[in-house]
Amino acid sequence: MLNIGRLSALLIIITAVLAAGCTQPAETAPDRETMYQVSTFSALSQGVYEGIIPVVTLLQNGDTGLGTFDALDGEMVCLEGKVYQVKGDGTVVETGDNVTVPFAAVTFFDADSTRQLEGLQGLSNLTTLIDAELPSDATMYALKVHGNFSHVKTRSVPAQEKPYPALVDAVKNQSVFERENVSGTIVGVRFPAYMDGVNVAGYHCHFISDDRQFGGHLLDCTLENGTLMIDGTDRFVMVLPRGMQGVDSAKADSSVVSAIEQ
Amino acid sequence: MLNIGRLSALLIIITAVLAAGCTQPAETAPDRETMYQVSTFSALSQGVYEGIIPVVTLLQNGDTGLGTFDALDGEMVCLEGKVYQVKGDGTVVETGDNVTVPFAAVTFFDADSTRQLEGLQGLSNLTTLIDAELPSDATMYALKVHGNFSHVKTRSVPAQEKPYPALVDAVKNQSVFERENVSGTIVGVRFPAYMDGVNVAGYHCHFISDDRQFGGHLLDCTLENGTLMIDGTDRFVMVLPRGMQGVDSAKADSSVVSAIEQ
Repeated sequence: MLNIGRLSALLIIITAVLAAGCTQPAETAPDRETMYQVSTFSALSQGVYEGIIPVVTLLQNGDTGLGTFDALDGEMVCLEGKVYQVKGDGTVVETGDNVTVPFAAVTFFDADSTRQLEGLQGLSNLTTLIDAELPSDATMYALKVHGNFSHVKTRSVPAQEKPYPALVDAVKNQSVFERENVSGTIVGVRFPAYMDGVNVAGYHCHFISDDRQFGGHLLDCTLENGTLMIDGTDRFVMVLPRGMQGVDSAKADSSVVSAIEQ
Repeated sequence: MLNIGRLSALLIIITAVLAAGCTQPAETAPDRETMYQVSTFSALSQGVYEGIIPVVTLLQNGDTGLGTFDALDGEMVCLEGKVYQVKGDGTVVETGDNVTVPFAAVTFFDADSTRQLEGLQGLSNLTTLIDAELPSDATMYALKVHGNFSHVKTRSVPAQEKPYPALVDAVKNQSVFERENVSGTIVGVRFPAYMDGVNVAGYHCHFISDDRQFGGHLLDCTLENGTLMIDGTDRFVMVLPRGMQGVDSAKADSSVVSAIEQ
């Protein structure tokens, strides 16, 4: 016969069994070796500047990377799980969760290799050095260089108005900023040649100072000393604007890439 | 005071509450609007034929698509959640879960549009017709054409031996198969121009007969009547061979693409 003692025991057992079955998380953990990209460089270069992914979603898919904001409103630096906006006038703010993103690439940064650097003049010398550190040039990398810089040159762009101009025209209104003796972090991504069009083949680097008061798309720098950290990723996730209607499938030609790097 | 009646009621309530909290699945459901790709066409064209993903994992990420197998051992047709292998001698088998895949693209097929077709001679006329149906040529599509064909011409390739030759050399040993009056399904994918290198820009179609006895990489066909189904996808997931070491980052040049389509 069932009495209160037995019923209580049964209650405890059923509760324990059901509770044990509930320990799984609501969402599976993100793959930390994934490069997560919003839209394509091809679409951005055509003027597809409408934000499609909120910052809060971006940060669920990575803690380090770069991009831009709805209406091409400045340069994005994503570092240590925070998203910073370097506006067209050079001011830097940490963005809210609901600000939207038309183009970005982020990953959860776990350094595969670390190297101390000293006395490197020019961004091209830095990227040449990094090239020699890469195990392969056929996969995707995020990189950080944290250190002391005797000179950093960045740019940012003001928010654009509809109808949106092509990127090569938008950057004609860029502002260039320079800073001497600043400590901060270069946040970069490197994509292989066969991904040209999906993103920019080669390096794309942004910068943010340690005091989070200065940054932007990195045009040039002179490093006094610092630490290079490289994170290779073997998995790629890309989210496109719905249907890509009205977007041309052609890739941006090389003149666009060189124009935005000056 | 607690009696058996109240304790029983409490038991039922606790059980119901806990069970309700357990309704979430063990894994989040896959995004059905994702094109899931194993490796890159750039790597395949260089002879990167080692399987990296088992068929069972492929099927967790899509029910429709195409690809090949470890050692380039034949042509893959994925249809209705099953994976078929068209071997180099033309025989067709359903593969086991543990067979591995060096290159494939699959999605969960949900037709966005359906159209009846009649009397189409030549694969190029078919793809021209499909082009006119697409809402945009800047996103990724899976497509199926199920119908009656008066003529179908396919090819397959035999398994390669290490050191693996480049794809352009491997297909020199292809076998071509032709069949008259066959009912079956064309399974295809279409990638935008800016994804050239990641996959093949444009159409890539395989075929399998309704009796699952004939198929392969589709070289040509004449359709008597059938149904075209198109599924656009806005999300892309790509899994690369670990580290891509020893793989060249260059994309396959257009001569490779044209060589394998003949």
